[in-house]
This record gives sequence, structure tokens and C-alpha cells, in this order.
Amino acid sequence: MNDVRMRGFAERTSVEDAVAWVDRQAAWIVPEVVPLSEARGRVLAEPVVSRIDVPTYPRAMMDGYAVRAADTMGAGDYDPLPLRIVGTSLPAAPANVTVGEGEAVRIMTGAPMPEGADAVLPVEQTQPGSSTDSVLVLAAVARGRHIGQVGEDIRRGREVLTRGRVLRPQDLGVLSSIGLSEVSVIGAPRVAILVTGNEVLPAGSKPADYRIADANGPMLSALVERDHGCVTDCRYVPDDPDAIAEALRADADIILVSGGSSVGEEDHTPQLVRKLGMLAVHGIAMRPSSPAGMGTIGHRQVFLLPGNPVSCLCAYDFFAGRLIRQRAGHRADWPYRQQQLPLAEKLSSAIGRTDYARVRIQNGQVIPLAIRGASILTSTTRADGFVIVPEASEGFAEGTPVTVYRYDA
Amino acid sequence: MNDVRMRGFAERTSVEDAVAWVDRQAAWIVPEVVPLSEARGRVLAEPVVSRIDVPTYPRAMMDGYAVRAADTMGAGDYDPLPLRIVGTSLPAAPANVTVGEGEAVRIMTGAPMPEGADAVLPVEQTQPGSSTDSVLVLAAVARGRHIGQVGEDIRRGREVLTRGRVLRPQDLGVLSSIGLSEVSVIGAPRVAILVTGNEVLPAGSKPADYRIADANGPMLSALVERDHGCVTDCRYVPDDPDAIAEALRADADIILVSGGSSVGEEDHTPQLVRKLGMLAVHGIAMRPSSPAGMGTIGHRQVFLLPGNPVSCLCAYDFFAGRLIRQRAGHRADWPYRQQQLPLAEKLSSAIGRTDYARVRIQNGQVIPLAIRGASILTSTTRADGFVIVPEASEGFAEGTPVTVYRYDA
Repeated sequence: MNDVRMRGFAERTSVEDAVAWVDRQAAWIVPEVVPLSEARGRVLAEPVVSRIDVPTYPRAMMDGYAVRAADTMGAGDYDPLPLRIVGTSLPAAPANVTVGEGEAVRIMTGAPMPEGADAVLPVEQTQPGSSTDSVLVLAAVARGRHIGQVGEDIRRGREVLTRGRVLRPQDLGVLSSIGLSEVSVIGAPRVAILVTGNEVLPAGSKPADYRIADANGPMLSALVERDHGCVTDCRYVPDDPDAIAEALRADADIILVSGGSSVGEEDHTPQLVRKLGMLAVHGIAMRPSSPAGMGTIGHRQVFLLPGNPVSCLCAYDFFAGRLIRQRAGHRADWPYRQQQLPLAEKLSSAIGRTDYARVRIQNGQVIPLAIRGASILTSTTRADGFVIVPEASEGFAEGTPVTVYRYDA
Repeated sequence: MNDVRMRGFAERTSVEDAVAWVDRQAAWIVPEVVPLSEARGRVLAEPVVSRIDVPTYPRAMMDGYAVRAADTMGAGDYDPLPLRIVGTSLPAAPANVTVGEGEAVRIMTGAPMPEGADAVLPVEQTQPGSSTDSVLVLAAVARGRHIGQVGEDIRRGREVLTRGRVLRPQDLGVLSSIGLSEVSVIGAPRVAILVTGNEVLPAGSKPADYRIADANGPMLSALVERDHGCVTDCRYVPDDPDAIAEALRADADIILVSGGSSVGEEDHTPQLVRKLGMLAVHGIAMRPSSPAGMGTIGHRQVFLLPGNPVSCLCAYDFFAGRLIRQRAGHRADWPYRQQQLPLAEKLSSAIGRTDYARVRIQNGQVIPLAIRGASILTSTTRADGFVIVPEASEGFAEGTPVTVYRYDA
């Protein structure tokens, strides 16, 4: 962290209060209709009610013969009863006959039941009869047996999936089977990313002439995508108030600004947000990321993320990601797998400040990486995850079990 | 399950042996180069070695003054030492001066260090001097202090990320910062999906005329996508050997065939795979999905998945998904979150058969759903996950803690 740049923060907002502000912005985006092929992981904006019965027709659940159950009464291995075969019912090719007394229709799994029949006799409970159009029944079958009844799986008018459901692969199967080709889901929040800094070259550039290649644009784009947002724009903006003001007019639901978030001479964005809208939070009692901020311009939420990549990741994770996930209809919680493990060495913090401490896991123990050095980009890639030291804590002693939020899941 | 259709299976392969066959096919696909914007979650095909130092130039880590440390010796609040300001260094705009004895250069965080200076004195340890071009030093600063040294973050020639790394958002930041715009990742296996069955209407159709709308195509597409495969084709094929044979020539790495996997009259695919290639497994000692199979045609792996949606999901999860994940460079394991919970009631199975039992979780207990009814599509959407009953087990008594694989994660 850069302590100098902090001088201007009269007081810092607690992480808790900043999170509370985020959660107050978390109303769902308007729904959008997407084809099933794009619906995996999206969140249902309204309940789905089936307009059809599944099955839509009574169908055989076994290969065998559609029969009148009464005709099989008394049949047995030593007392085979003959039936006359009057047709064949295949999937999508029903037998256009009515099964009368003493009659049967050859039927395949999934094929429509013919009129008159009220049970399916499995083929293994039969024997060929004396001629090609006869079959011997070797066992009695009960009425209704081996028939998939209309609406047995899904009944017309039934709520199949509830509002807020995160759609799974099998849900898409069910939606398709009730005749839907698209579905109404919560719209993905549209996120614009502005990377400021005269020294920052666009991602994909080779660093040269005292300029550095941008790390935050690609990182933030991937984070937004992970959190179910849609990156509509990733733009590089010079440290110039007019250029930044223009970029803050982006057509988006949420704007992430990387760099220039503090109180230095070249930190224009906080003042611009104050001028164009409302700067709700500026300066947060945390490490790293204390020179972060957030506010609104019109309907848009704007997050001011420090340019240092570690701080940028931390501020995104605590605040921006939380809003994006919620506005996409997902849970606010971090999408990281949690693991409880003991600390290999002590982890120090300061009361009054929340720490986001990158850690490694080795031999089942948690090793804190240097908590300083927000500009050390590779500390986020060397880390297996992070541990939070809450505001009221001075840290944890060696051996204390802590919760690690793992980056790899 | 449909017992009749099982008659033709002389013997069934164990799940273990079928999984072993899958794992033998699991060589990585050839690498492909993708832009960073598409690299999240992909797996590095080769280690990434940095061709540059980060930082590429020594830079200030604080706002303040670039000085010669020796000039600050002995300075203190009551003994301020004056320095003459000879220039300003901003990010991407270095001061073109050399700092001599008694001189300082105003510098911002991230700006290049001027020649001659060997430390940064933070602005808070200074006071304005007697004129605009002078500053008073209030504290001594050590040599090298507050300077980001060349290669301090990443040293040229160093391996930054290892082969097999699943790329995280922050990894993309690091790759970008070393000047890369694209990266070599393990190619996504190209998967063709063939849905057979004369009664099956393409996904998106309204069920009509004794035909049903396909559930498996959309479900399998979403599963393949989840498992890092790329669906190149999802095609509907009638129950006709020539049409199926033609479709099995799909230009793909892996072919999934839904339906017609068993030994009935209309089950053409197993014979076709045997004829065109090698049918390695057909009939598996499991429930559901026992009429599943797998083999190869040329370089392609072919999975025969039962048409019943529940069986289809189960066979995909056990076998096809496992291969797709591995060929994409990912772990073979299920991507489902595991949870240990007690059974609310007994869960029966049979020795010699592996069961994939869908369950619900209620009040912290596991409630098995009907293990029968592979055609009951909604049993997979009502289920919160599944429990595996191994081949050697008759099931579990009420109260036994079991591992639930949760569909929602």
C-alpha cells in the first residue's frame, strides 16, 4: 500500500459499511430471453409452468405386447395362454387398431399404447405362438403395468422450475422436453471497464518506453465473466479529466475504473464521480485496496479500483464482484471454495482494518505471503488463496485454524 | 431400467473397468493458441517463461522525491535539510535529469527513477522549502528504499506459470503484463452429439403426433460445455443404420450418441461401432445406464448413451464427461461439490451393480428418490444430487453418513 496517497482520506469507511452499500444496489437487472443453448448457469427470472403433459400420450415402458390385463389372468409357465397379434406399435408409429378380447399389439419401449390395451406384457414373459400372428402369455400382468401414463413425469400447469433457479444441464433437458426453445433469465449486468493511467499500455502490448502493459483489464474481464456479468467495453483512458468524464458516460449498468482511485494529483475519478453523480464511499479501512471507492452516476454503479493489481483484485472481490453476482441473480458470496487449515506462522494485522492476506498452502498448513507489496502482481498467482483478518482482530497466532478462500475453485 | 432390453448382454462390464478404459483414452488434445480474453479456465499446454523483467525500469513505489540517500543522513523534524528540486518524474514521463548532490526530483508512484537517485523520500517526510524549487527533508531514508527494482516482480527467463495450470483471472493479468496477448492452451476436445430415435423431435419443437421433444441434446451440450469441451455439432438422426453410420463419420474428437444403445431391434449403433471400429464396452453393471457402451472409430471415442434422460445423464457423468474433462487437461473427478450427510432412510442396492441414486437433501438429511424410473426426467431436476452405491455394497442403512455429489455446484 501507498501510505502517502492516503493522507487525503479524512476517514475511511469500514468494509462492512461498504458491503452494505453494495447490497443496497443489488436489485435484479431486467430479464432477458435466451435460447436454451446459452442458458446454462443463468438464473430463471420467472417460474416455468409446463403447458403440456409429459408424456403427452400413454406409452410403453418395456418392449413386449400391449394387452388387456384381464386376458392374462391365470397364465403361467405351465399354462400359457395364446393371444392374436393384430398390429405393431413403434415409437412415433402407432398401431392403428383397437385391442379386443384375446388380442395383443407388439410394442416397443416409448411407443404409444393402442386403444383397448391397459397393460404391457414384457417380451420375456411370452413365447412365440403356433403361428407368426400369435404369442403365448406366460404370466399374468396387472392393469396399468409398464405404461407411462399421461402427465406422469410432468403435469400440465405444474411449476417445473422455480424463479431464481440456477439452470443446470438437466434443467435445460426438462425445458426442452416441454417444448421450450428459450427461457427468461435475469439479464447479465453490462459492465464497462475503464483502465486509466498514462503509463499503461493496452493489454497485448509489449512494455516499452517507461510504460507498462496493462494487467487489470484482462484480469477484470475474466472476473466479470466468472461472476456472470457481460463486459461490454474495455477501454484505455489517459489521466485526463475530460477523457475520463467522457468514458464515465459509458452505456453500461456498472462501470469499473482501474487506477487513479486515490487522492493524488492525477486521481481525477473520485472528483468526477462526485461531480457527475454521488461518491458514496471513498477510502476503505482495509489492506490492500484502501484507496478504493464507489458511487453512482445516474443509474450506473461506479467502482474505483486501485491500479495496483493486487489491490484491484481485492477491491473487485470485496465489492464490485459482489454486486455483479447479485445483479445477475446469483449468491453474493465469494465463488471460492473454502478450506479450514492451521496457520504455519502468525498472521499480523491491525485493529480497525480488514486484511485480505494472500496465502500459500503447504503440507496442509497456511503460509501467509508478504501482506505488503500490492504492486507485486505475482503474489496473486503464487498464492493459493486468501485469508480475511476482520477489522476487530490483530491477527492470528501460529497454529490457529483459519478459513482459506481458494483461488483454484 | 428396461430389463427386457438387457437380455442380449451376455455379461456386463464393471463400472471400474469401464472407467479404466476411459482413462486409457485420456491423452491430451493438441494445444491451441487463444487470446487472453478467451483463456480463463483453460489449461496451459506449456510453461510460460517471461521474456522481460517486471518492472522493466526502476520505479518509485511512493509519491515523494527521488533523492540520494546519503543527502538525507542526519535529517530530522528538528533538523530539516534542504534539497533543490531539479525536475519532476511522472508515470511514462521521466525527468531527463541526473540527481546530483543536494538535489531531488519530484516523483509519483510508478514513475521511473531518475539517474543519480537511489531512494524515494515519501512526501509526508518532507516540508515545502523556502522557495518553489526547494524541499525540506524531515527524515533520513535508506538506500534503495521505496524503489521497485528491475525484475523484482518477475525476472526475465523465469517460469511464471507452469504447464497444466488452470488459468485464473489474475494469471491473465500476469500474462498480459509480460507482454503476451495470447497463450497456448490444451485444445478443447471437439464433441459431436447425435440424437437418435424416430420419436424424437429436435430440441425447441413442440411435442406432437406421438413424438417427444428432445431433452438429451440440450442437456448433453450443456454438460460438454461445463466440462470444457466444444460442441461442434448436435444432430438428429433417424433409427436407420445408414444414417447413423454416416453421422458416426462426424469430424470430431469424441462422439456422443443418445438413444439406441441397447440390444433391441432398433438399437443399431452398437453394431455399427463394432463394424466401423471397436466396441470396447457394451452393457455395464450399473443402474441406471446399464445399456451404455463405448468404443472407438478411427481416432474418435464414441459413447453410447441410453435415450432415457436419467440414464443418459448418469452414463455421461460416469464415462463421457470424465474423458472430456481429462482431454481438456482438467481433473477427471466430478465437478460436483461433495457433502457428507446421514441418510434419512435406507438406500438399497444389489451386490454386483453400481447405483447412481438421485437424492434430495432435507433438514440436513439425505432422502433417496425412487431409484427406478430412468425415464422420469424430473427426477434429475428434483434431485439435489446423487449418492454412489458401490458394486460390492447392498446399500446403506438409515442414518449412515454418505457422500452426496451436489448438482448445484
